[in-house]
Amino acid sequence: MTHPHRGILITFEGCDGGGKTTQLRLLAERLKQTKRAFLALREPGGTDIGETVRSILLQKKHASLCAEAELLLFEAARAQLVHEIIRPALNEGKVVLCDRFMDSTTAYQGSGRHLSLKAIDVLNAFATGDVCPNMTFLLDVPPKVSRQRVLQRTFNDLDRMEGEELNFYERVREGYLRLAEAHSERIIVVDACRDKEVIADFIWEKVHGILING
Amino acid sequence: MTHPHRGILITFEGCDGGGKTTQLRLLAERLKQTKRAFLALREPGGTDIGETVRSILLQKKHASLCAEAELLLFEAARAQLVHEIIRPALNEGKVVLCDRFMDSTTAYQGSGRHLSLKAIDVLNAFATGDVCPNMTFLLDVPPKVSRQRVLQRTFNDLDRMEGEELNFYERVREGYLRLAEAHSERIIVVDACRDKEVIADFIWEKVHGILING
Repeated sequence: MTHPHRGILITFEGCDGGGKTTQLRLLAERLKQTKRAFLALREPGGTDIGETVRSILLQKKHASLCAEAELLLFEAARAQLVHEIIRPALNEGKVVLCDRFMDSTTAYQGSGRHLSLKAIDVLNAFATGDVCPNMTFLLDVPPKVSRQRVLQRTFNDLDRMEGEELNFYERVREGYLRLAEAHSERIIVVDACRDKEVIADFIWEKVHGILING
Repeated sequence: MTHPHRGILITFEGCDGGGKTTQLRLLAERLKQTKRAFLALREPGGTDIGETVRSILLQKKHASLCAEAELLLFEAARAQLVHEIIRPALNEGKVVLCDRFMDSTTAYQGSGRHLSLKAIDVLNAFATGDVCPNMTFLLDVPPKVSRQRVLQRTFNDLDRMEGEELNFYERVREGYLRLAEAHSERIIVVDACRDKEVIADFIWEKVHGILING
């Protein structure tokens, strides 16, 4: 995969409770110290249309949402985010940080919900066009630990995506680890059980490397 | 394409202003006279999730919606409609009438917006699964005529999809006619400039044929 744009796309992946959002924030704080322009986004969402899609996806009343529709809604939000925000920002040379991107679909809807990985590859390519992350941090943590963190954070009031069984998250984690093996040139597996400052240092070291060389 | 279900799916296609909705209503009235259970639906919509997606698609404030996201939203609404309503109804042996279905995507987003027809085929198959129309009526009318009808009906207050240039509708019409040629076993081209009662008689004759034999 070539990177025709001048910017750098860095994505954060993994199950909820792995510290994606925290690490994205800590990286953003370090980037603020540099002169490099950057943007922090989350998926699904980031655009008016994406936020509407996000609300459909996360509402518990939409428990009847079928797996195919769920996947297509995620891809729709992604296509709009790429078109409206990510591609223009990369073309301007910005660093773009994104909380979840195409790997989430492969892990959650492919490995988690058993949808065709082949169809997902076509759909991911259709939604993202020529935009591929330069670097992806997979914050890996055993599902039992991440579930505990999510339950504490939400006071047991889980949204539609968070309310799955433990073995669903085990499949998602395995899916992520297989992806990391297949795309070792861009996906970096991070042991997310470690102290968050230690993880932040590790991530900064990697990002600093591509900021200088990339 | 096999039809493993016992029901019959009949779809109405063509540009707005061709009389799809009128003909669907007239067919529904004739079906009421028979003992056959039936269901009349429209796309996008027909489910809670689909109606939310419909409102995103048709609002003029969403002029920034990119072609890929538009297509994916249509497919998401379709997947949910198939899952929640169409497949169960067909399994119960019902006749399902649908105002637009997968051919709309091929004609509008493929021929109209120049998105990859190959990707659209994959996406249509992903959204509809094993469900394919038994019979499709393509209400064909020159774009100049259909535009005039739509402008009269809406008092010039067009929604986002209706506000395209005339040559867009010419491409859509050509796309539809190519589809009809490629799938002549199920798509019936109807000259929609004729009197609506004449068209209704023609459609009823065809439908009556598969109700007896199908």
